[in-house]
Amino acid sequence: MGTADAWPAFTLATGPVGSTPATAAALAQPVLHHTDPAFRALYGQTVTLLREAFGTSVDPVIFPGEAVVGIEAAAAAMIGPDDVVLNVVSGLYGRVFGQLAGRFAREVVEVGTSNRASIAPAAVRDALARRADVTIVSVVHCETPSGTMNDLDAIARITARSGALLIVDAVSSFGGMRTDVENWPGVTIAAPQKALGGTPGLSLLHVSEDAWRHIAANPNAPRGSALSIEDWRDAHRPDRAFPFTPPVSDVYALRSVLQQYLAEGPENVLQRHRQAARAVRAGAQALGLSLWAAEDALRADTVTAIEMPAGIDEAEVRALARAESGVMLAGGQGELRGRVLQIGHMGPAAFPMSPLIGLTALGRALRRLGAAADIGAAVEAAVAAWDDGSESEPR
Amino acid sequence: MGTADAWPAFTLATGPVGSTPATAAALAQPVLHHTDPAFRALYGQTVTLLREAFGTSVDPVIFPGEAVVGIEAAAAAMIGPDDVVLNVVSGLYGRVFGQLAGRFAREVVEVGTSNRASIAPAAVRDALARRADVTIVSVVHCETPSGTMNDLDAIARITARSGALLIVDAVSSFGGMRTDVENWPGVTIAAPQKALGGTPGLSLLHVSEDAWRHIAANPNAPRGSALSIEDWRDAHRPDRAFPFTPPVSDVYALRSVLQQYLAEGPENVLQRHRQAARAVRAGAQALGLSLWAAEDALRADTVTAIEMPAGIDEAEVRALARAESGVMLAGGQGELRGRVLQIGHMGPAAFPMSPLIGLTALGRALRRLGAAADIGAAVEAAVAAWDDGSESEPR
Amino acid sequence: MGTADAWPAFTLATGPVGSTPATAAALAQPVLHHTDPAFRALYGQTVTLLREAFGTSVDPVIFPGEAVVGIEAAAAAMIGPDDVVLNVVSGLYGRVFGQLAGRFAREVVEVGTSNRASIAPAAVRDALARRADVTIVSVVHCETPSGTMNDLDAIARITARSGALLIVDAVSSFGGMRTDVENWPGVTIAAPQKALGGTPGLSLLHVSEDAWRHIAANPNAPRGSALSIEDWRDAHRPDRAFPFTPPVSDVYALRSVLQQYLAEGPENVLQRHRQAARAVRAGAQALGLSLWAAEDALRADTVTAIEMPAGIDEAEVRALARAESGVMLAGGQGELRGRVLQIGHMGPAAFPMSPLIGLTALGRALRRLGAAADIGAAVEAAVAAWDDGSESEPR
Amino acid sequence: MGTADAWPAFTLATGPVGSTPATAAALAQPVLHHTDPAFRALYGQTVTLLREAFGTSVDPVIFPGEAVVGIEAAAAAMIGPDDVVLNVVSGLYGRVFGQLAGRFAREVVEVGTSNRASIAPAAVRDALARRADVTIVSVVHCETPSGTMNDLDAIARITARSGALLIVDAVSSFGGMRTDVENWPGVTIAAPQKALGGTPGLSLLHVSEDAWRHIAANPNAPRGSALSIEDWRDAHRPDRAFPFTPPVSDVYALRSVLQQYLAEGPENVLQRHRQAARAVRAGAQALGLSLWAAEDALRADTVTAIEMPAGIDEAEVRALARAESGVMLAGGQGELRGRVLQIGHMGPAAFPMSPLIGLTALGRALRRLGAAADIGAAVEAAVAAWDDGSESEPR
Repeated sequence: MGTADAWPAFTLATGPVGSTPATAAALAQPVLHHTDPAFRALYGQTVTLLREAFGTSVDPVIFPGEAVVGIEAAAAAMIGPDDVVLNVVSGLYGRVFGQLAGRFAREVVEVGTSNRASIAPAAVRDALARRADVTIVSVVHCETPSGTMNDLDAIARITARSGALLIVDAVSSFGGMRTDVENWPGVTIAAPQKALGGTPGLSLLHVSEDAWRHIAANPNAPRGSALSIEDWRDAHRPDRAFPFTPPVSDVYALRSVLQQYLAEGPENVLQRHRQAARAVRAGAQALGLSLWAAEDALRADTVTAIEMPAGIDEAEVRALARAESGVMLAGGQGELRGRVLQIGHMGPAAFPMSPLIGLTALGRALRRLGAAADIGAAVEAAVAAWDDGSESEPR
Repeated sequence: MGTADAWPAFTLATGPVGSTPATAAALAQPVLHHTDPAFRALYGQTVTLLREAFGTSVDPVIFPGEAVVGIEAAAAAMIGPDDVVLNVVSGLYGRVFGQLAGRFAREVVEVGTSNRASIAPAAVRDALARRADVTIVSVVHCETPSGTMNDLDAIARITARSGALLIVDAVSSFGGMRTDVENWPGVTIAAPQKALGGTPGLSLLHVSEDAWRHIAANPNAPRGSALSIEDWRDAHRPDRAFPFTPPVSDVYALRSVLQQYLAEGPENVLQRHRQAARAVRAGAQALGLSLWAAEDALRADTVTAIEMPAGIDEAEVRALARAESGVMLAGGQGELRGRVLQIGHMGPAAFPMSPLIGLTALGRALRRLGAAADIGAAVEAAVAAWDDGSESEPR
Repeated sequence: MGTADAWPAFTLATGPVGSTPATAAALAQPVLHHTDPAFRALYGQTVTLLREAFGTSVDPVIFPGEAVVGIEAAAAAMIGPDDVVLNVVSGLYGRVFGQLAGRFAREVVEVGTSNRASIAPAAVRDALARRADVTIVSVVHCETPSGTMNDLDAIARITARSGALLIVDAVSSFGGMRTDVENWPGVTIAAPQKALGGTPGLSLLHVSEDAWRHIAANPNAPRGSALSIEDWRDAHRPDRAFPFTPPVSDVYALRSVLQQYLAEGPENVLQRHRQAARAVRAGAQALGLSLWAAEDALRADTVTAIEMPAGIDEAEVRALARAESGVMLAGGQGELRGRVLQIGHMGPAAFPMSPLIGLTALGRALRRLGAAADIGAAVEAAVAAWDDGSESEPR
Repeated sequence: MGTADAWPAFTLATGPVGSTPATAAALAQPVLHHTDPAFRALYGQTVTLLREAFGTSVDPVIFPGEAVVGIEAAAAAMIGPDDVVLNVVSGLYGRVFGQLAGRFAREVVEVGTSNRASIAPAAVRDALARRADVTIVSVVHCETPSGTMNDLDAIARITARSGALLIVDAVSSFGGMRTDVENWPGVTIAAPQKALGGTPGLSLLHVSEDAWRHIAANPNAPRGSALSIEDWRDAHRPDRAFPFTPPVSDVYALRSVLQQYLAEGPENVLQRHRQAARAVRAGAQALGLSLWAAEDALRADTVTAIEMPAGIDEAEVRALARAESGVMLAGGQGELRGRVLQIGHMGPAAFPMSPLIGLTALGRALRRLGAAADIGAAVEAAVAAWDDGSESEPR
């Protein structure tokens, strides 16, 4: 312990978040040739498992490339020169998506709110009323840096009524919070390395039938390219070949984490994330800190953003937590850099002991930097909140 | 055994080619967060190991995305609207690259030869003499489908004299045959899942200083994109962040295979590939088959393309070899589909017993389809060629 | 390759015989505390799987300690000061068991045959007729060093008629050849690291109800000792504790190999071993060598003992096969040392390509030592015998 | 979470104690044949690493069989019909050893103390003064059930002066507390699955030259048996064969944990255990509980025994900690069953977060059973004690 490059005992970051023994075992399996019938069968099973996890009737797409790649590919496919995009900005990721959309769209209009808040669905409704020519609404479900959620179900209903399609970044929510992708017309992008506890290297895409038609009509949608979603649409069908070699080991890991997710039961998984979130939020406040997300924001069950006391640099806090407690936290993103860090509580980092590990590591680091931190109160609050969460919550 | 989706005992395909126990162990390590100091250190080491394996003075780029992605990214970076590309076509991959180059270039001119042959360096020289405006020469080092090589050293000298830059696809050669990338001005693309025996999911790029300047001057080079090489140029530097999360487990595997490669010693590795190639070539001919590559072609040490007897479908042969012998061969690509298959002898599939495993599986499948196949002679020839190779070859 | 301490690519020895990817994954699981409910449950499942693999109605005993330990423990438990043991000697292991039995028995009488032959059941019958006071008959089912079998079913019937109990060493047969332990009254000792492809470190004991009674009546049977079978009899029952910590990881591997065995199907497994044995026997003879087991001996399906040509030391042959071909063979035991080596074809070493790998490695080594070896003919014979075996054999 | 047979997230028991990723990777390596030159080399390295970890000049013995087996073997080897054993009883393990010694010795005399205390070295001195015919002194270094230590250095000096030899059970101390085996004349038994964090299945024996002579002179020392230490004395020498197949995978794990131990540095390891012990002891008391070990006892750095409040069954506490917090504690041994449980803090369970994980799991379980438990205070005390320990301790 103690040296900064020793492997951490606990990864409570915002993805990747470590791996279970079952996932590690999956990764160690022999690297098959992608045309091997055993791999073709395994790939087909994985698509089926993902469809089950998405709860959808349309076969999803396993797209080679980390979530950021999948988001770029989704934007390039969906947003053509005739499209007007209404981009919701409630945090860093939403703002970055607007820049990306601008490369492809006729026009990008934005509706925003503070990065401590959730967008009011009414604001989306009003924006769509103002601009009847909007064809695509883009929203980030969970804004990781600020730990906030947007009400996708409401926004999806509003969007559906307008006739537009959605592009949803559900990367940090899928697998840890309810994502009703079947009722989100358009494209939803998820990823294995967040609440599922898998590896980075793949994007998990749900594309509705309407969205496939929209993509087909986009003359600029990438085809014959690493950024082409269409190339991979049917790659799992027995009579098709892969456009290129998928990352075999990452597919093994994906299959494994989907099996683990379905075996544990989605409702149990959501409950576990809900309890971890409550525990971390209660604990952080008892530690003497403020949550970044405003009181009335929808707060994420997968990640909690915590504001540092004045004069304390979150990067130093994280470095100390890593070096002295063996705990890896997240932070350092965009305008919140230096001020706000995140405790991730997703996947294998959303178990009963996780909150107190994160809180104690955080408290020790703060004290080392001269700040007050009531670790005992934080742990008590976390324990109480976990137990509350396990009893009172409807499932 | 016997069922088509049981895992094969032997992968003698053209990449991925299985994994050693050390590689499997690397893959099973915990999935660290990409900003974890342990992962940052490991990533930096991996770049250093790759530079050593490349034998170069410039830090190479580990680019997320399988080799096909890396090739597209290299083309997009290097070929701008002012560039005239001389594309060498000696096989399927060369022809496909020409189409890709056409998306970006002012003009693509081609110089070709039979897909059973290697390009004559003089043909490149003459083409460059005819078109003094060529700025980029693109060449595939090893044409996997046909098992042929091009004389890159000669082509590189000619290209250097002309002032043009190279784009070299060394995916199927690097790690199994000599690749003098330091003296190939331009961009060379390699990959872990071929002769190194790693996983697909990464491209390994050597970019010369001149090439970086050329990319910087290309107004259309991707930036802020999954296809941007520039974004990843300095990603290993301690003061930089990753553009997005690299595929952590694939990086573990890459580090491991580079360590294995350097520990075995590049000369020993090349020798082993040379012996395996000799053995497979001699054995295939003794089996009663013809090599696809012409007598005077430069034949690859990593893969041998073998023509099937009239009336025999290579896809059926491969299916039988897989089902009855547990051996996965390669084939089915482009215009050679149905006629030519490949025995891969690269990485963990280039050891003394590999040739006879591939040849026996092939012979058994041919016999089952009614063709003659002298397995005994093939094995004897392979054994003899291996031993010859081990003694007579200068190292 | 080439250095003597590099890991082999192929272990065609007589156990351990390598491990499948599934077994490796099982071994890598976290080392649980032995009282952990997850381990207790896993242990109970393993006993159930073993009972199913044994095909018995009595719960078997998983005994900590490699097969040699289990055999000593079985002898110590079964053979008391009043017992007269009829020990069958048809090879090295039978002779060694006689020495062991002598430590515990009132008297050991022996009936023997050449170490190239199987005992004639009539010889056992006659011996029992001569000595009506025999209480225990001890037999080795498969004599690994000489590759011979004894007809246990016949001997068991004869023994049962006499009222004596059996001690059967089925270590090298169980999992690769039919072992009808339910009808072998007494104790049968098997092991995971042979035809099941597991790890050494455990013995697998079937103890009939009569045998348990015999042990209970033995005043000298070890109790409260590492050699006590009785201590472990009920260790898998939920209300019992382990006498001491069992080797947790070896139990994981055992569970995995039993699952693999039952999933493949015992009949399929036996068929595969039968084909491998035919192929190796035919191949060895075609190579120009003699099988050690006489024509009319019952030959084992798990191991073939091969006599070296005059003047050739089997130890040198094995060292060369290991160093130059990456193939580990067995040999060097007892009086056959220097003259006879074994190709093991059990567990993961009993697949279609295994025979030719073993034969080619053997042939190359012989040639290097100046002996003739027709590798081509050997491989042809092995291929033909494998295919014959797959069609003509009743299952 | 929640089901009793789900795998625990944290094993804070008294061995096995889980495994690090490096240990898991070692376990997954292919199961080599024990005569394979690669395994022979690895085995030799492991003996060398163990000698270095023991800090001795005599090659130690890696003995197949869990620590209890090694202790029985050591007793059987050392204690002959002429030996008088002075057995120190300060807890359960000492008492059990006396029974074992009684099987072999001419006479066993005992000197004891409360199972909450450490033996006074003077008591040993006086006993030896009373009985000049004592030839062997047997002592348990760390009494796991009660969390106490005996002062081996003092006892060793006293024993040496008397001319007797020691049998030391250092199973629960070696690797986590200083064990000066070089100066403990006689036999010391350690094990991999305790503070080293390895697997059960092997005993690690240091046998001094005097002890080897004593064993050689013992007519009843086991030879040609699974319990024979002598059989394994030279098993690592290149010119010797193994008496029987050692547990190959457990040897891989042992090599790995020794490498990890030596790479971290014994002093760093000891310091880490010391800090963990202080933290757990302080935390347990702040939780409102009593340590079992008396104030003036030497308390162990590897395990803390904690007395439950009146009316609380430690077995129920452990079951709840396992089921609701995913934390496996130890307990249930001998006369302390029901009253005293142990938090193990050894090997991979002796890191900064370990104490608070154990304490919180314990506190939650106590509360569920209606007992008071000040978790906040416990965590604060543990954090403070860890930090104190890291600064003030001489190293």
